[in-house]
Amino acid sequence: LFRVGEDWYFLFILGVLMATISFTMDIIIARLHAGKTWRGFHRRLGYLSWTMYPMALAAFSTGFSQSITPHSGGSGISELKTILMGVVLEDYLAIKNFGAKVVGLTCTLTCGSTLFLGKVGPYVHLSAMAAAYLGKMRTTVTREYENKFKQHEMLVAAQAVGVATVFGAPISGVLFSIEVMSPYFAVRDYWRGFFAATCGAFMFRLLAVFNSEQETIAAVFKSNLKIDFPFDLLETFFFLILGYGGSGFEVLSRWLMVAVRKNQLTAKLLATDKPVYTVLVVLLFASITFPPGLGQFMASRLTMKEYLTSLFENRTWGLLTLNASGVAKPGELWQEWDHPSATIYGTLIFFLLMKFWMLILATTLPLPAGYFMPIFIYGAAIGRLVGEVVALLFPRGLYSEGPPRPIIPAGYALAGAAAFSGSVTHAVSTSLLVCEATGHMGHVLPTVLAVLVANAITQKNQPSFYDAPIIVKK
Amino acid sequence: LFRVGEDWYFLFILGVLMATISFTMDIIIARLHAGKTWRGFHRRLGYLSWTMYPMALAAFSTGFSQSITPHSGGSGISELKTILMGVVLEDYLAIKNFGAKVVGLTCTLTCGSTLFLGKVGPYVHLSAMAAAYLGKMRTTVTREYENKFKQHEMLVAAQAVGVATVFGAPISGVLFSIEVMSPYFAVRDYWRGFFAATCGAFMFRLLAVFNSEQETIAAVFKSNLKIDFPFDLLETFFFLILGYGGSGFEVLSRWLMVAVRKNQLTAKLLATDKPVYTVLVVLLFASITFPPGLGQFMASRLTMKEYLTSLFENRTWGLLTLNASGVAKPGELWQEWDHPSATIYGTLIFFLLMKFWMLILATTLPLPAGYFMPIFIYGAAIGRLVGEVVALLFPRGLYSEGPPRPIIPAGYALAGAAAFSGSVTHAVSTSLLVCEATGHMGHVLPTVLAVLVANAITQKNQPSFYDAPIIVKK
Repeated sequence: LFRVGEDWYFLFILGVLMATISFTMDIIIARLHAGKTWRGFHRRLGYLSWTMYPMALAAFSTGFSQSITPHSGGSGISELKTILMGVVLEDYLAIKNFGAKVVGLTCTLTCGSTLFLGKVGPYVHLSAMAAAYLGKMRTTVTREYENKFKQHEMLVAAQAVGVATVFGAPISGVLFSIEVMSPYFAVRDYWRGFFAATCGAFMFRLLAVFNSEQETIAAVFKSNLKIDFPFDLLETFFFLILGYGGSGFEVLSRWLMVAVRKNQLTAKLLATDKPVYTVLVVLLFASITFPPGLGQFMASRLTMKEYLTSLFENRTWGLLTLNASGVAKPGELWQEWDHPSATIYGTLIFFLLMKFWMLILATTLPLPAGYFMPIFIYGAAIGRLVGEVVALLFPRGLYSEGPPRPIIPAGYALAGAAAFSGSVTHAVSTSLLVCEATGHMGHVLPTVLAVLVANAITQKNQPSFYDAPIIVKK
Repeated sequence: LFRVGEDWYFLFILGVLMATISFTMDIIIARLHAGKTWRGFHRRLGYLSWTMYPMALAAFSTGFSQSITPHSGGSGISELKTILMGVVLEDYLAIKNFGAKVVGLTCTLTCGSTLFLGKVGPYVHLSAMAAAYLGKMRTTVTREYENKFKQHEMLVAAQAVGVATVFGAPISGVLFSIEVMSPYFAVRDYWRGFFAATCGAFMFRLLAVFNSEQETIAAVFKSNLKIDFPFDLLETFFFLILGYGGSGFEVLSRWLMVAVRKNQLTAKLLATDKPVYTVLVVLLFASITFPPGLGQFMASRLTMKEYLTSLFENRTWGLLTLNASGVAKPGELWQEWDHPSATIYGTLIFFLLMKFWMLILATTLPLPAGYFMPIFIYGAAIGRLVGEVVALLFPRGLYSEGPPRPIIPAGYALAGAAAFSGSVTHAVSTSLLVCEATGHMGHVLPTVLAVLVANAITQKNQPSFYDAPIIVKK
């Protein structure tokens, strides 16, 4: 099983390479994002700057990637799944797509929370392309014939690397890629995936340390939740409700998504003028999220990462707002959520309502983009809302006896993120992903329960998010 | 995939049932163990009491279980593995073995750290028996023919339940059972395992709450490690060494194990007088571990659970001993390790030396017993020793600049436990098991690295611990 042969070097190279690219992309995006200035301008100029920047980027992303290859749109996970099932889509893993997808994805992600799209899906596709290319290079060097079986193994490992290098989470990266990708797999593949993903995740976190972003290779979205008393037993009930509610959202969204895709206007635009369609949609999004306008009710100033960090915040927002004038320092992330007239509950609800249809519309955009991260954040927002409401109803915790054990809304946010993303992708490993990405293990059981409940409901009804396009394209 | 049918009820019942049995066994063992009084007696009487008690229990365990069924000895994982590969060992899953194995295992575990044996292996076997029996009951009720395919699915789920209900760790329970048991598996099975294991783990922790042992359903071996700064980047080097060293031990032990098994004297005794052999070995063990004698150098007063808890202790023992007179309260667990003349390093080394051959001898005993837990503790002790030495060498941490970041030996203990048990069983999921069982996620990356290194070395050389008996029995 563990022969020290070229396979392992190969997996090592793949992991390190993808981690480096992932990290470089993150840095470039952060730099480019800093260029998105709109404050300090006159209001109308600010609006222009706020909308033009993502419009230009999204249009470029669409135009550039589509001109090189029509395969670069979307996340690419559905197509990879079909490849793994044995269908030959040779062109899909061609290396010429690599550059198009990297550039396109970087532009998409630079739009940030305006577009509200993620990185995981395309990055898995990128990783698979790199693996396929490295495999070809190897066969040229060793002068062996291409081995279909080995190719398949490498693709499986590449997916694990893709997930692991985005979240810095090796174990759940492997599990998630298995769950999403294949109905069967060999423990042998699992080993390869594990090795490559660990190399990738280690490198990814190592780069963060070298870049002095972090002091040590800790979790990516490090949360400092107290682990003394994570949750009361009775709270399990609310976690179950959360799982149930999350799946409800999912069923609704699937229905709406079909409606949007079947819409004649969008279909026409998509068939002919892809950049125009993109620009129109992005203009709409940017107008809605413009911070002095509607954006103030949905914390639209935050980036994707800041959304997650603020939603997983240890403290209870409801309590923070009560003595906001006294304790809180200005400029903390959670304050973006606290609107003077709408309160945090209002902004959370508005955020959920608006992002619901915006997210569905965003999935129709023909640019390279992932849908896992937005779904994850959306789930975290659902969980945070539930958690804050529970904390409001039971300020001293659920037990009236003994010392007060306040409810920790961040735990609900974790469970919500896992349950919603799990029910959309039909995976349970999102519960582990949450733990690995935040470095917090205390809520693992209620999270798993919420994920199981959410999955039990959605799996009964629908194909997974990644299966649906396969069925549609048939 | 997720039809609400009898399968799910069945898995639910299996999980809850096994969790209840596991918990009841734990309580009975704790009660029985309390009966093992040896203090307060005259020294010679104390010795008699210390040795007679486990001798009687082990003899009864051997005699009782062997008289009912010859299959009840050992862990049973190797045999289960052969069953899953398609070999029919019908009798092995017969329900009549269930009682024998429960009683035998309870007696074995009551001997506690004197015998130094565990629960996981037999409990997986028990779980498989329960699943097989429940499956038969179902076919009688529904009047369907037995479905081999369904039986297989249930067995896979049962193994996950077995691991999960012992450690209260659902995710790693599923992974570990997959890795150890089967070369291939379906994601479909993984779902079933996940569901059943979560029910089991939840029930298991729930019972602990109802029994007022714990305040909430937190981790089983809850460790209160600081997560502010888990480890320095440079410490990764020591973790790698730890993985390397762990695998070295493993290779040595395998060699010795073969020597013991091939020994003519033991083989003769095992063939004819099993209880006599057991009694002799236990007498030897009890004499060595007698606390006023040699036992004082190996902390033999601790139970298995206390061993783990003390080894995963947050504080650095080396620092504690320095100001033992001042700060430390008497009766803390770590003080068992602190011998006035041998120091903690001496006791740890002596513990490792003695338990090494004792553990190998213990695996030859023909009573129901698991070998995972002792291996796990042994690995934790290796890690603790390495961690304490590193902490001694670098009292201010590895960076001389900035504020001191002391080394946390408990992190090494976690990594050591995962690496050693992983290399013995050829599994990577032990790294996750450590995190789930202790509720501590901060050290996940170095732990995974140590496990991978340890596995890379041992897998090259040998069949896994559970494969070896299969090969021998051929």
